[in-house]
Amino acid sequence: MNKPDQPLYYADYLQLDRLLSSQAPRSGEHDKAAHDETLFIVVHQVYELWFKEILHELNSVIDMFGKNYVNEKEIGIAVLRLGRITEIQKLLIDQLRVLETMTPLDFLEFRDLLHPASGFQSFQFRLIENKFGMNPEQRLLFNKEVYYAHLSPSHQDLVKRTEQEPSLFKVVESWLERTPFLEFQGFKFWTHYRRAVEEMLHADRENILKNPISSDEEKEQQLRELHVNEEYFIALLEEQKHNELVSKGHRRLSHRATQAALLIELYRDEPILHIPFRLLTVLTDMDEQFTAWRYRHALMVHRMIGNKIGTGGSTGYNYLKATVDKYKVFSDLFNLSTFLIPRSKLPDLPEEVRRNLGFYY
Amino acid sequence: MNKPDQPLYYADYLQLDRLLSSQAPRSGEHDKAAHDETLFIVVHQVYELWFKEILHELNSVIDMFGKNYVNEKEIGIAVLRLGRITEIQKLLIDQLRVLETMTPLDFLEFRDLLHPASGFQSFQFRLIENKFGMNPEQRLLFNKEVYYAHLSPSHQDLVKRTEQEPSLFKVVESWLERTPFLEFQGFKFWTHYRRAVEEMLHADRENILKNPISSDEEKEQQLRELHVNEEYFIALLEEQKHNELVSKGHRRLSHRATQAALLIELYRDEPILHIPFRLLTVLTDMDEQFTAWRYRHALMVHRMIGNKIGTGGSTGYNYLKATVDKYKVFSDLFNLSTFLIPRSKLPDLPEEVRRNLGFYY
Amino acid sequence: MNKPDQPLYYADYLQLDRLLSSQAPRSGEHDKAAHDETLFIVVHQVYELWFKEILHELNSVIDMFGKNYVNEKEIGIAVLRLGRITEIQKLLIDQLRVLETMTPLDFLEFRDLLHPASGFQSFQFRLIENKFGMNPEQRLLFNKEVYYAHLSPSHQDLVKRTEQEPSLFKVVESWLERTPFLEFQGFKFWTHYRRAVEEMLHADRENILKNPISSDEEKEQQLRELHVNEEYFIALLEEQKHNELVSKGHRRLSHRATQAALLIELYRDEPILHIPFRLLTVLTDMDEQFTAWRYRHALMVHRMIGNKIGTGGSTGYNYLKATVDKYKVFSDLFNLSTFLIPRSKLPDLPEEVRRNLGFYY
Amino acid sequence: MNKPDQPLYYADYLQLDRLLSSQAPRSGEHDKAAHDETLFIVVHQVYELWFKEILHELNSVIDMFGKNYVNEKEIGIAVLRLGRITEIQKLLIDQLRVLETMTPLDFLEFRDLLHPASGFQSFQFRLIENKFGMNPEQRLLFNKEVYYAHLSPSHQDLVKRTEQEPSLFKVVESWLERTPFLEFQGFKFWTHYRRAVEEMLHADRENILKNPISSDEEKEQQLRELHVNEEYFIALLEEQKHNELVSKGHRRLSHRATQAALLIELYRDEPILHIPFRLLTVLTDMDEQFTAWRYRHALMVHRMIGNKIGTGGSTGYNYLKATVDKYKVFSDLFNLSTFLIPRSKLPDLPEEVRRNLGFYY
Repeated sequence: MNKPDQPLYYADYLQLDRLLSSQAPRSGEHDKAAHDETLFIVVHQVYELWFKEILHELNSVIDMFGKNYVNEKEIGIAVLRLGRITEIQKLLIDQLRVLETMTPLDFLEFRDLLHPASGFQSFQFRLIENKFGMNPEQRLLFNKEVYYAHLSPSHQDLVKRTEQEPSLFKVVESWLERTPFLEFQGFKFWTHYRRAVEEMLHADRENILKNPISSDEEKEQQLRELHVNEEYFIALLEEQKHNELVSKGHRRLSHRATQAALLIELYRDEPILHIPFRLLTVLTDMDEQFTAWRYRHALMVHRMIGNKIGTGGSTGYNYLKATVDKYKVFSDLFNLSTFLIPRSKLPDLPEEVRRNLGFYY
Repeated sequence: MNKPDQPLYYADYLQLDRLLSSQAPRSGEHDKAAHDETLFIVVHQVYELWFKEILHELNSVIDMFGKNYVNEKEIGIAVLRLGRITEIQKLLIDQLRVLETMTPLDFLEFRDLLHPASGFQSFQFRLIENKFGMNPEQRLLFNKEVYYAHLSPSHQDLVKRTEQEPSLFKVVESWLERTPFLEFQGFKFWTHYRRAVEEMLHADRENILKNPISSDEEKEQQLRELHVNEEYFIALLEEQKHNELVSKGHRRLSHRATQAALLIELYRDEPILHIPFRLLTVLTDMDEQFTAWRYRHALMVHRMIGNKIGTGGSTGYNYLKATVDKYKVFSDLFNLSTFLIPRSKLPDLPEEVRRNLGFYY
Repeated sequence: MNKPDQPLYYADYLQLDRLLSSQAPRSGEHDKAAHDETLFIVVHQVYELWFKEILHELNSVIDMFGKNYVNEKEIGIAVLRLGRITEIQKLLIDQLRVLETMTPLDFLEFRDLLHPASGFQSFQFRLIENKFGMNPEQRLLFNKEVYYAHLSPSHQDLVKRTEQEPSLFKVVESWLERTPFLEFQGFKFWTHYRRAVEEMLHADRENILKNPISSDEEKEQQLRELHVNEEYFIALLEEQKHNELVSKGHRRLSHRATQAALLIELYRDEPILHIPFRLLTVLTDMDEQFTAWRYRHALMVHRMIGNKIGTGGSTGYNYLKATVDKYKVFSDLFNLSTFLIPRSKLPDLPEEVRRNLGFYY
Repeated sequence: MNKPDQPLYYADYLQLDRLLSSQAPRSGEHDKAAHDETLFIVVHQVYELWFKEILHELNSVIDMFGKNYVNEKEIGIAVLRLGRITEIQKLLIDQLRVLETMTPLDFLEFRDLLHPASGFQSFQFRLIENKFGMNPEQRLLFNKEVYYAHLSPSHQDLVKRTEQEPSLFKVVESWLERTPFLEFQGFKFWTHYRRAVEEMLHADRENILKNPISSDEEKEQQLRELHVNEEYFIALLEEQKHNELVSKGHRRLSHRATQAALLIELYRDEPILHIPFRLLTVLTDMDEQFTAWRYRHALMVHRMIGNKIGTGGSTGYNYLKATVDKYKVFSDLFNLSTFLIPRSKLPDLPEEVRRNLGFYY
């Protein structure tokens, strides 16, 4: 675009000629231009530019973690890049406020001209969902159609291909499974964790039974609660139970990856586990922000076009609302909090192990 | 507090002695202080201070609109005060980010010491809900108990009393019902609106039937959609149908108030209707922000304490999620978008009427 | 772009083919692509898209106010559109956080390849400054060159032309000067305001002199302060003094427009003055946000490229910092607070006048 | 406050009785309560609560780094706690929007009653400045008085004491000076860095001289720029020059600490330097946010009370503006960007050294 040795001009570098001539309001073509259609186009174009950037970051991190061996250096870089995505996500949410300065009545001035185009057709957003790790089986049908039904053939291909490719979820799961620290120089994390849980639950039971103040009825109630609690831990501790939950779709992360995630959370202050801990945190942040975005987006749609039930039996608003929770990718990381136990209940790592989890010089 | 003629000191004015000595971490009393408990206390105290301010504004606006005659001047003031609430609401949401810098494991260091205290016990938040206009019948039971079950007796009294008192919803509804403009100097809004709707639907039907390209099957499908649309408008146009929906809980705003809200939305650029339009907008904003807050709060709870099912059969997270949509107060204003028709389909107001809706000098 | 009767496709409507192929990192051309250059391009493209939207809104408001008679309806619309700009401005500021996820070292990987392109060359930003109302005389030279020195010839033309065209500042000033309410049905605002100020200053003097507690020294000090205060008000009350300040560049808004702005601020609760009051508020908001943006931008530049003094004797950071305050457009509206007097010191409007400032039905 | 074994109540835990009864508007005492004074009090109380929390975090990090040996584990914890402060800082800035919903005219209703109390008297904010590391010599006089002149005697003592105590700046500087990696297993960072700089500057000179296209005049100009650049690097490379700049107040960080900071920035991807890199980043973030806060605060003051020149010759607004840049604490970290050189120009670390900067297992 720029001849060599010619000084670079800002407008050329950013291709502003193309960029700033890519807004073609439909209302202008037909009749009187609707003032707010320009806003509508610009807002959506900004979304798509951010989506491109998110994909750029996602792809780079998937590449790093997709290798059989993840260079220690790259984990820190990955955390920074995913952190960048969370900063963009905050903008995606805040940006809805700008769109909401357009009132429903103003939208009505050109809404019908856009039919049937809609945000459902953002193929980049579908790519992001798949690259992030949405399970195709999680997806809801909309009016009995798959989510890519209304994409152009080439966009459909792109999207379907990412269903097969490694996602961030998958590569992180594999990386977790490879963690060497679950059994490390004679220290077996799972054995220690299991024992700590059992002791904690045992002590809880003793406390209930020996409490001189509480009535029999209260004790029974507390024991029932304890039982639920125990069942919960058993479903984690027994690999088979865990796998059953996976097959039913109540868990997704493999048993070994779950163990590794728990280890990282519990021993996160050991220098070698600190960056991995930041990684798990930023994944949870991303998931939370996507989920918050879905919710705020659904609210905005409700406000903008109401809640008219279509012949398919569902409304845009209700469909969007239904996807909000269902489309979380790292739910298992959220649920991990259920299985944390206070640090005081965990053994310190053996000195030898600790030394190896720190830096050595 | 301050003797007359004594110069006022910032710290005395703000009562900082009391304010800054009101953080008493529980973890310090028992054993080793948990560093993050101070954050936990401060965040919640900040919430409560903002709640006090929100109540201050809500009360003042309810007072203004609770009178039989609302001074024209006061509508502008009310919009500014409610706008202030929306600015506070944005902070309430953003503030969750500060709380989330506390990890679940850090929370675990003192969580059990707080039992059974919880945000469920914020009586000020319950007052806000009721003052804003939450219908007691909308409320969900939590573990079979009413929402104020765990408040102190005096806080219960405060909360229950607000269930009986005029809410923002109620006073705004009454004010809408009193609008003189529905029938104004011979101009009957509802007659015009009905006619415009009927013409629009008729034209839609003609367009479907006469379309030379579409197949019979397509036409049938389109006619079915149109029929749903017609039913929707009928439910608005016929007072009796509307009242049936109200009695079933699908609508809340009275038929007359709904008409007035629609008039304001459609003729919002007339000077006299402009500030009322801003009022409806800010009410929708508030509702949207409360709803977004509920959702983000539920996400944070999920992240912080997981999703363990209690003996009552529900988890905090699931309960909170269930309240999110159900607790909207001005849903009818959101749904209003369904009934808007393009300005071009509406008659201009008669010159005489318009002159009276503008300023006169 | 779209054949008539062909269903519109989201990606075609937004011209995503062009939009998403307009990122051409320079680092890729030469050698190894620098990962963060994509971010750098996308962030700047998003800025330019928002700038286009801001210009769209500014132009529409300048058109409305540029007419000899501003339709009352349009003031409300103008406030909404300028309010939209302030929402965009918040994003412009928050967006810097995304850019700051790129570290200075990462920027260094491709920074030299961009030479001499820079944000100084954003012609759209210059258009915004001029349309908003920046006075060409306010501008600072950078390395002895005018601000448009490095724009392409056609962009220079565009920018220079806007220096001549009506700006938001100019059209609002004219509109203020035309206000009929300064002398309205026998009520002369300026006479009343002057009298209220004089009484206030007289009472202040009496209070100082009669205070039995304060020493002579204290009294002298207080009288000196009062004198400064009096001088300040005189510079407002005497048109000639005001005009002197204008000619020295200490004030910009004409005397009559200043009076009108003061009237609007002081009687803002009168329905007819309420929307004009919102207009003055949103203009101040815009100015504040632009100023805050300049400051945050300067900080980011400091952080990203340090503070090396160039041969021209100035650094980018120092230049940017120097523009921050100097480039405010509506300073006079900020300074207006100096001249407000408590409402209790102002006469109520005569009943007849008030009735005409309200709605009439 | 809570008897043992009694269930904890949310309102008791947070001491809501005291908290919510600590708002005593002055306007109510005298005459008619000014509606917005409650907002004014609440906003300032929220600021003070956040200040308490910031001090809690600052103190804990100063304690960690104040020891002769900083546990590797604690650096990660420090980064998280300082990161929490930056999240709070964002709220401090955004919160100004809430205060700005109070118009200057509304403030005038009670402003005089507060005299002479003012935010200048926030002793907690002064403690934060000192703990963060503000140099007492950086401070400006306001009307010829020191910054703590109007504090109560006990608050003055608190504030003056922190001028003597270790600040975050000081303990971080000492920690940087102790870095073992500047000379590590035969690898001398400074020697390598110096050589890389010299080669870079030499190559630049060659490029200028040998360029066949540029005129003599252009070459001279480019050589002058290069010379400035060289001087800049010399002032860093020569310890004596650096110390001169320190004694003149142009630098603050010691020469050895500056070297260490540069090492960390340049080799930040080495696992052992990654968390230290995050530490330097979060310190810069904090400084940027404080600075941005000062600026936004000054703008708000301008808007709220105008810019009347006092007898002392300065206005609140001008004083506040003057402090903005002057009060930066970690300017040297911002300026560090000036001295970065592209990674490609730096030697890779010797394999043996790298292995020791990574994890070992």
